[in-house]
Amino acid sequence: MSRDAEGRPAVVLLSGGLDSATVLAVARDRGYRCHALSVRYGQRHAVELQFAARLAERLGAVEHRVVGLDLAAFGGSALTDPALAVPEAPADGIPLTYVPARNTVLLSLALAWAETLEAFDLFIGANAVDYSGYPDCRPAFLEAFEALANVATRAAVEGRGRYRVHAPLLHLRKADIIRLGHALGVDYALTVSCYQADEAGRACGRCDACRFRRRGFEQAGLPDPTPYRPAS
Amino acid sequence: MSRDAEGRPAVVLLSGGLDSATVLAVARDRGYRCHALSVRYGQRHAVELQFAARLAERLGAVEHRVVGLDLAAFGGSALTDPALAVPEAPADGIPLTYVPARNTVLLSLALAWAETLEAFDLFIGANAVDYSGYPDCRPAFLEAFEALANVATRAAVEGRGRYRVHAPLLHLRKADIIRLGHALGVDYALTVSCYQADEAGRACGRCDACRFRRRGFEQAGLPDPTPYRPAS
Repeated sequence: MSRDAEGRPAVVLLSGGLDSATVLAVARDRGYRCHALSVRYGQRHAVELQFAARLAERLGAVEHRVVGLDLAAFGGSALTDPALAVPEAPADGIPLTYVPARNTVLLSLALAWAETLEAFDLFIGANAVDYSGYPDCRPAFLEAFEALANVATRAAVEGRGRYRVHAPLLHLRKADIIRLGHALGVDYALTVSCYQADEAGRACGRCDACRFRRRGFEQAGLPDPTPYRPAS
Repeated sequence: MSRDAEGRPAVVLLSGGLDSATVLAVARDRGYRCHALSVRYGQRHAVELQFAARLAERLGAVEHRVVGLDLAAFGGSALTDPALAVPEAPADGIPLTYVPARNTVLLSLALAWAETLEAFDLFIGANAVDYSGYPDCRPAFLEAFEALANVATRAAVEGRGRYRVHAPLLHLRKADIIRLGHALGVDYALTVSCYQADEAGRACGRCDACRFRRRGFEQAGLPDPTPYRPAS
């Protein structure tokens, strides 16, 4: 895809996973000039960031930036606390992989960058179907963030634009997300979803994220290109 | 002050400046068990963080944490971009010292910590009087953030509590803030406001922040304990 696209600038949150890669492809397909943003928030699966950089390049983002955020200082999540094991099956209540206020923090950082770019469109891969109980993946949350953005910044307050939070995957099942991205040319072999991927990005095949993903390819009727590592 | 205070837990944003020190004193005075949060966001006046740690201790916070955030990756502010000079007088339009979406980002991080603490009270030193044109210091912004917090987290969505954003300085002039803190025993010699304080925390006496602060002490009729460095 061409990176010389004209069109309005947008900030696209890009984790290196299947969902956000699809979102970037959607944003490009809609003609946005995409500024891809990843956050290094102390997560253990840092290999995602290497995948994100490559995806940004392949999917035609005009640039990719990584912001460092030391959320591990708060503890309380298997994704940021090395002392906690990654769960292999859904637990009752809050998933152990929960990062506190994650989408609030990620969208705040997207808004900060958008403000310096004079961009008014933020894209996020939030999904209310397979959302595992995260409250910050629901429409009410996204609407509240949009309302916040429109009173938080000079550009909005002075009427130079209106922020919009785009969540194009919000109501799609994993299989539909995969079909959509496939149609837009996303190479899912370049994405990593596994919470405990190895340094080469190979998936464990057993954690929640791997199960959701594998089932998605099955239901989409498409081959699963995920590199799985040999069982130990 | 005692650090064994009972009472509800609160997260208090503490920069090491005059305003946030006063906010911490107010929160303690209201009986909250205060968890003080500072953010190292690539600002040049990192001496603030040393002041913040000492203030947290002196003003009776139960703990103080510093979260690292590399906002400098976005550029665009004299506070985070070493290539830009700190302005010594107010400019038209956006102040050069503007950090993009700053209070949105800071409150998001406060919310993240609050979620792990099961705290529902967030304190911030936002001020709508001497606010230098920052849109994220207005009541509409704070109300929008409060609304966001109450749909963003499990604890709120499940009805275990309602988030409140407290901005006790919102409608106070600098002189009134100083009087309030003085009455609560804040030692303002331990705070730093200057955008270009030296390593010992000594103020320049010339930047916007220094002017506002000095005038505040004058109008409050209280001695200015600020350590100023010799003019160069």
